[in-house]
Amino acid sequence: MNKKKIAVILSGCGVFDGAEIFEATLTLLHLDRHNINVTCFAPDIAQHHVVNHRTGEEMIETRNVLTEASRINRGEVSPLQEADPDEFDAIVVPGGFGVAKNLSDFAFKGGECDVYEPFAELLRAFHAQKKPIGMICIAPVLIPKILGKGVSCTIGRDAAASGEIDSMGGIHIGCNVDGIVVDHEHKVITTPAYMEAQRISEAEKGISALVEKVISLC
Amino acid sequence: MNKKKIAVILSGCGVFDGAEIFEATLTLLHLDRHNINVTCFAPDIAQHHVVNHRTGEEMIETRNVLTEASRINRGEVSPLQEADPDEFDAIVVPGGFGVAKNLSDFAFKGGECDVYEPFAELLRAFHAQKKPIGMICIAPVLIPKILGKGVSCTIGRDAAASGEIDSMGGIHIGCNVDGIVVDHEHKVITTPAYMEAQRISEAEKGISALVEKVISLC
Repeated sequence: MNKKKIAVILSGCGVFDGAEIFEATLTLLHLDRHNINVTCFAPDIAQHHVVNHRTGEEMIETRNVLTEASRINRGEVSPLQEADPDEFDAIVVPGGFGVAKNLSDFAFKGGECDVYEPFAELLRAFHAQKKPIGMICIAPVLIPKILGKGVSCTIGRDAAASGEIDSMGGIHIGCNVDGIVVDHEHKVITTPAYMEAQRISEAEKGISALVEKVISLC
Repeated sequence: MNKKKIAVILSGCGVFDGAEIFEATLTLLHLDRHNINVTCFAPDIAQHHVVNHRTGEEMIETRNVLTEASRINRGEVSPLQEADPDEFDAIVVPGGFGVAKNLSDFAFKGGECDVYEPFAELLRAFHAQKKPIGMICIAPVLIPKILGKGVSCTIGRDAAASGEIDSMGGIHIGCNVDGIVVDHEHKVITTPAYMEAQRISEAEKGISALVEKVISLC
């Protein structure tokens, strides 16, 4: 049997302005444990901004999302535009503020946000082909904007973010850090990870469960 | 019983100019699974250089090792100088070129390298207190320079790097990716990780074994 192929979308490198590194790494770890053929993608665009992760302050420089994302996967990250939904069995999006700052402007506009169109199109293509979509941490807030109303998902217990999902037409379901929410009709799987996690081993439990469910629905 | 405390030393953020992100993350994951109280440290110095991880080319900019390392651990990284050996039960150093470019100049000078002195002093203090020292990937090449001759360690099967260890007075022992080498006299534990790993789940096996052994020797 051919190995299953799954695309992973990275939004930079570092929780405050890019992809959350632990979530990205744990996603890749568990996909690899299941012997999945993984390709990482990231948009070849400037980051919204650069945050000094030690101080939380904005730095006066520019960085590219694709270039920085390449740090996570040892250089092996391809431009988002090269992701062909026909070639993959599923797609997974780890969290981090990069999702809310680079793949969208949710961090600044909440429910009035726009999603980076090539990313939205890519997810819609997987959805149209009835291929599983896994979204981690803050990433599920974009589901109503991308896939339309009536899709169930979770970002954990955060009242503000879950309220935004409902206000955009999504169906938010509360979930603990080690759990997942599965919308079987839409094949959308979500887990809170660092929206709830206090430690890395907690985030791992939900991500492990998400990866296993995504694969089982391929 | 009080939780054991272990210091983890990061050398930046990204395999080609800093800490190897997967190795750092997996080290922190396994320490957390064992309920260890972890503090990450990194030197507050400029990186030797900045490498575009997608192209492999040097970038014309400067980055700080501590600031970039903070991306890995969600902002929680302290200056190396604040690491007090009396407060910790063991120390672990993940790999990546940051060890050979920022914590030393091994990448450029091989066996003639110098080690960043505050880092060397820190490891010598743990050694003097007979506390376990775990070193991953390329990091073990610095052991002879830091701890002196006659300490057994591994960087896997790489002929050049293992030859350098022997030429500096270390005792290199060949090791597969899922294994560890333990020098019980010196309490030094090493594993090849991405010196040998072809995939993240391979690197994890050795790192998991290393973390378990480090803790058992505390």
